[in-house]
Amino acid sequence: MTQSTTPRREVAWAQIDAAAHALGGTTLNELFAAEPGRVGAMGVEACGLYADFSKQRVDAASLDALFALADAADLPSWIARLFAGEPINHTEGRAVLHPALRAPREADFAALGEPVMGDVHEVLDRVAAFTTRVRDGDWLGHTGQRITDVVNIGIGGSDLGPRMVCEALVAGEQPLQVHFVSNVDATEITRVCAGLDAATTLFIVTSKSFGTAETLANAATAKAWLLGKLGDDADVAKHFVAVSTNHAAVADFGIDTDNMFGFWDWVGGRYSLWSAVGLSIALAVGMDSFRDLLAGAHAMDEHFQTAPLRENLPVWLGLIGIWNTNALGLPSQVIVPYAQALARLPAYLQQLEMESTGKGVTRGGAPVPRQTIVSLWGDIGTNGQHAFFQMLHQGPQALPVDFILPKKLGHDVDHQHRMLVANCLAQSEALMCGKTAEQVREELTAKGLAGDALEAAIPHRVFTGNRPSTTIVLPTVDANTLGSLIALYEHKVFVQSVLWDINAFDQWGVELGKQLATVIDAELSGGEAQAHDASTTALIAKMAS
Amino acid sequence: MTQSTTPRREVAWAQIDAAAHALGGTTLNELFAAEPGRVGAMGVEACGLYADFSKQRVDAASLDALFALADAADLPSWIARLFAGEPINHTEGRAVLHPALRAPREADFAALGEPVMGDVHEVLDRVAAFTTRVRDGDWLGHTGQRITDVVNIGIGGSDLGPRMVCEALVAGEQPLQVHFVSNVDATEITRVCAGLDAATTLFIVTSKSFGTAETLANAATAKAWLLGKLGDDADVAKHFVAVSTNHAAVADFGIDTDNMFGFWDWVGGRYSLWSAVGLSIALAVGMDSFRDLLAGAHAMDEHFQTAPLRENLPVWLGLIGIWNTNALGLPSQVIVPYAQALARLPAYLQQLEMESTGKGVTRGGAPVPRQTIVSLWGDIGTNGQHAFFQMLHQGPQALPVDFILPKKLGHDVDHQHRMLVANCLAQSEALMCGKTAEQVREELTAKGLAGDALEAAIPHRVFTGNRPSTTIVLPTVDANTLGSLIALYEHKVFVQSVLWDINAFDQWGVELGKQLATVIDAELSGGEAQAHDASTTALIAKMAS
Repeated sequence: MTQSTTPRREVAWAQIDAAAHALGGTTLNELFAAEPGRVGAMGVEACGLYADFSKQRVDAASLDALFALADAADLPSWIARLFAGEPINHTEGRAVLHPALRAPREADFAALGEPVMGDVHEVLDRVAAFTTRVRDGDWLGHTGQRITDVVNIGIGGSDLGPRMVCEALVAGEQPLQVHFVSNVDATEITRVCAGLDAATTLFIVTSKSFGTAETLANAATAKAWLLGKLGDDADVAKHFVAVSTNHAAVADFGIDTDNMFGFWDWVGGRYSLWSAVGLSIALAVGMDSFRDLLAGAHAMDEHFQTAPLRENLPVWLGLIGIWNTNALGLPSQVIVPYAQALARLPAYLQQLEMESTGKGVTRGGAPVPRQTIVSLWGDIGTNGQHAFFQMLHQGPQALPVDFILPKKLGHDVDHQHRMLVANCLAQSEALMCGKTAEQVREELTAKGLAGDALEAAIPHRVFTGNRPSTTIVLPTVDANTLGSLIALYEHKVFVQSVLWDINAFDQWGVELGKQLATVIDAELSGGEAQAHDASTTALIAKMAS
Repeated sequence: MTQSTTPRREVAWAQIDAAAHALGGTTLNELFAAEPGRVGAMGVEACGLYADFSKQRVDAASLDALFALADAADLPSWIARLFAGEPINHTEGRAVLHPALRAPREADFAALGEPVMGDVHEVLDRVAAFTTRVRDGDWLGHTGQRITDVVNIGIGGSDLGPRMVCEALVAGEQPLQVHFVSNVDATEITRVCAGLDAATTLFIVTSKSFGTAETLANAATAKAWLLGKLGDDADVAKHFVAVSTNHAAVADFGIDTDNMFGFWDWVGGRYSLWSAVGLSIALAVGMDSFRDLLAGAHAMDEHFQTAPLRENLPVWLGLIGIWNTNALGLPSQVIVPYAQALARLPAYLQQLEMESTGKGVTRGGAPVPRQTIVSLWGDIGTNGQHAFFQMLHQGPQALPVDFILPKKLGHDVDHQHRMLVANCLAQSEALMCGKTAEQVREELTAKGLAGDALEAAIPHRVFTGNRPSTTIVLPTVDANTLGSLIALYEHKVFVQSVLWDINAFDQWGVELGKQLATVIDAELSGGEAQAHDASTTALIAKMAS
C-alpha cells in the first residue's frame, strides 16, 4: 500500500463517524417514513439471492460514506488482486485462490503466476472417478463387500464445511451414509464406530499436512478399530483414503497414494470445501450435486468480480457489517437461517468469519485502530425464537440479525413452510417496529386490565423496536444456491478485511495453544514439570491426581 | 423491595466501578505475581465440581465490591424466597420451583403456600412406570410390536434440555433410540420419520398448553404420517403420549389422557427438563440415570441454598459474569466444554441465560441502567480451537471463556483424553500469558529469520495475553455431574437477575413475533393484505410470488 492511501482511508472513516453522528437516534421507522424509495434502493440481487438491507439503520449519507471507504481502501483493486492470484496472504507469501477451485475447466487462474486450472480439474476428475466407484459399489472392502458408510476424519476447515454442506444437501435415499469425526475427545470416534460395520466402512483422513494432531489421533484409533474387527492382516488401503499433500506420511499410514487427493498452499483450510476436502460431499450427495455447489459459488465469484460496488452483494453485506460494528458499535452479529437444513451454517460462519478477521494487527503489523469482527453466533429459526430471541427483542442492546429465508423447500408440507416464512418475516418486523407503551395499554385495557396492575404490566410488554436486520431470500436450499450463499459470505469477509486493512487468510493466533498443549501433554504423560503460571500448574496437578 | 435498598445497591455499583478503575490495566500476570495465594483463594468447589476463577481479571478489592453488591441486593433473602416458593416471577404472579422437581420425596416445598412434593413424585412415579413399560417392551404399538424409537416433538424448553441431556448421556446399547423434532420447517420431521418404522415408533408431544404452534403442526404431520403407514384406523393412542396440562386438547388429538404427564405453572419452560418434560431422557437412558440427574441437581440446590456467599459456586459464577460485563465491559461470554458429549450445552445455555436475563426493564419496570446478559455462545473443544479461537487469542477484544473439563470420560482411549486435557489447559494458559514480541523475536531468530522479514513477521505472531477465563473441572460426564452442572448455571442466572434487579422467569419478548406471524400467515394463505412497514410488505409479496 502506498503512503498516500492511508490518509484517504482515515478521511473516509471520519466521514463514517460523521454520518453516524448525523443519523443519531433517527429510528428505522422514521427512515422509512422519510424515504419512500428505501426498499427498492436497498434491495440487492445476485445469482438468484435477494438481500433486503432496508431494515438496517443506514441512510443515504451512511451508504455514501461506506462506499467512499471502499473506494479509499482500493477495494476494486484488491478484488482484482485476489482473482489475479497475487500473494495477498502476505504473512505466508501465498496467493488465495479458492475461486479457482470452482471455476470451469477453461478458466485462466494462476497462483503467483503459475497456472492452476490443469491441477484443479485433474484432482476434480479423480474425485469424480473415485466417487463413482464407491457410490456404484465398485470399490470393495477387505472382505469383498461394497462400502455403505464413509467417515470423514478432519477438524476445522477439513470438517466444518463438508459437515455443514452434507447436512444441508443430503436428501432421499443415498447409497452411502457419511459421518464426521473431528474432536480429539475419543467419545466421538467411539460413538460413530459403534454404529458401523468395519467391513463396509471407508475412512477419509483429511489433513493437508497429515500432521494435524487431533486428526492423526482419530485416524490411528479408527485404524486400530478396523484391524480389531477385520483382523490384523486386513488391507488398510481398502478402507482408508486421504485428502492430503504429504505422500510419505500417507503411505506410512498404510494408504495407497493413488487414493490420496491433494490440494495446494493457496487453499486455506476454511476455504477448502471446494477442493478435494469436499470428497465427503461428493460421496454423500453425488458428484453432480458437488459440481452444482461449485457452479453456484462460481456464479457468485463472477458477480463479485464484475458487478459495480453499488450493485455488488458481498460488498453490501460487508459494508453493512462494518457500519453495525464500527459506526453503531453493535457487539455481535446474529445469523438465523429459517431452514433446518442450514442448522450448521452458524458454526461454519463462526470459523469463516472469526478465524479470518479476528485479527489484532493490520497488514503492516500495527495494532488495529478499531474493532474488527464481532462475535458471530446464531441458530436456526424457528428454534431460536424459543431460545434467545427474548434478548434480541427486549435486551438492552440491539444486535443485528441476518435472516436467511428460502422461498421453497424440498418437502411438501406447504402449511408448515408458510408458517416458517411467516415467522421469519414477523421477527424482522417485530424487531424493527416494536410495540409502544400506548399500544400495550390499549391491548391490556381491552383484556380488562386496569389501575395499578395495568401500569405495572405495561413496561414488561413494551418492545423498543429499531433493531436492525438483513433478510436474505434464497430460491431454495439446493447445491447451487448453497454454493452461492457460502461464496457470498466468503467474499463479505474479504471485503471487510480490505476495509479493516488486515490479512483474512492467516491464523497465527492458533499456534501458541498448540505449542503449550504439547508441553502439558508431556507433563501429563509423566514428563518433567515445566514452568507455568500458578493456576495452570495447579490445574495440571488436579487433572493428574 | 423497600425504598431504602436502592441507594445501597447504587453505592455498591459505584464501588464496583471504583474497583475496576483501581485495577486499571493491571494484567493477570501481574496479579499472579502480586498474590501468591491467588489460586487457593479463587478456587471454589461444590458437588464434586471445582472452578478455578484465578484467571479472571479481579483482585481482592474487586471481589469485595462484588460480594458487597450481592449483600446490598439482598441476595441471601432472594435465594430464600426462591426456595420458599414465593411469587418471584412477579409479572406472572408465579412461584419458581424447579428445585422441587429434583428434591427427594420427603422434602417440603410449597408454591405460594401450596405443598407440591406429592404432585411432583406422583408424576415422577408415573414417568418411571411408563418408562419401564416402554423400555422393557411391555408397551406395544398398533400392530403388536414393541417400541424401538421415540420422537420427542417440542420446541424451546420442551426440546433443548432433553435433547442436550440425551446427547450427553446416551452410551452403550439402549433399548430405545430417542429422536427430537422441534423446527416448524417440516424438513426436520420428514427427515426423522424417513428413518423410522411407524409400527415401532412412539411420539411424545411436549407442550404445556398443547397450543405451541410449531409443536402442534409437527404433531399433526407425525400423526398423518403414522396413519398413512399403519392405516386410517390405526390406534393413535398406542403411538402418541403427551407432556402437557391441557386434558381437552390432548384427548382431542387422540391421546389417552392416562398417558398425559403434567407439570405446573411454577415450572418455566427453560427450567423444565427436570419435570415430565424429561420423559424423553428417562426413555433414552433409563429411569435410574434420570434420577441420578435429578440428584445431581438437588445437590447443587442444597449447596446454593446453604453455602455462605463466599463459598457458593453459583454466586461466584454469577458475580464473575457481572464483573466481566459491567466492570470490564466485555461484550460476550464464550462457553467451551472439552467434552464431545456436551456438544449441545452452549445452545442450551443460550436459552437458559439469554431468555432469562435478556431483559430491558427492572422488576419495577424502569429501563435497566446497565447491560444485563451479553451474547453467550461457544462450541466444544478441541473443535473450537480450529474455528473461532483465532479471534479469542488475537482479536482486538478479550472475551471471557468458561472452559468445562472432565477429569475422566467413559472411553478408554487414554492418550486422546490426555491430549484433550492438555489442549484445554493450554488454551487458558495461552489466553492469559500470551507471547511477547521479544519471545517471538527469539523463536524466529532461532529459525533463521532476520532483517526486514523478521521485523515484518513479529507483530502477527504476538499474543497480547491478559484474556480471562474460568476453568470448571468435572469429575466426569455422567448423569449426576451433569445435573449439578446444569443447576450451577441455572442458579448463576438467578444470582445475576437479582443483582441486575430483573425477573429471570418471564419472557414477554417472545409475544410480538408470535402475534405478527399469525397476521402474516393469514396473508400468505390468501387473506387480505394488512398494514406493515414497506420492507415487510415487499418481502411478503416476494415470498408469495
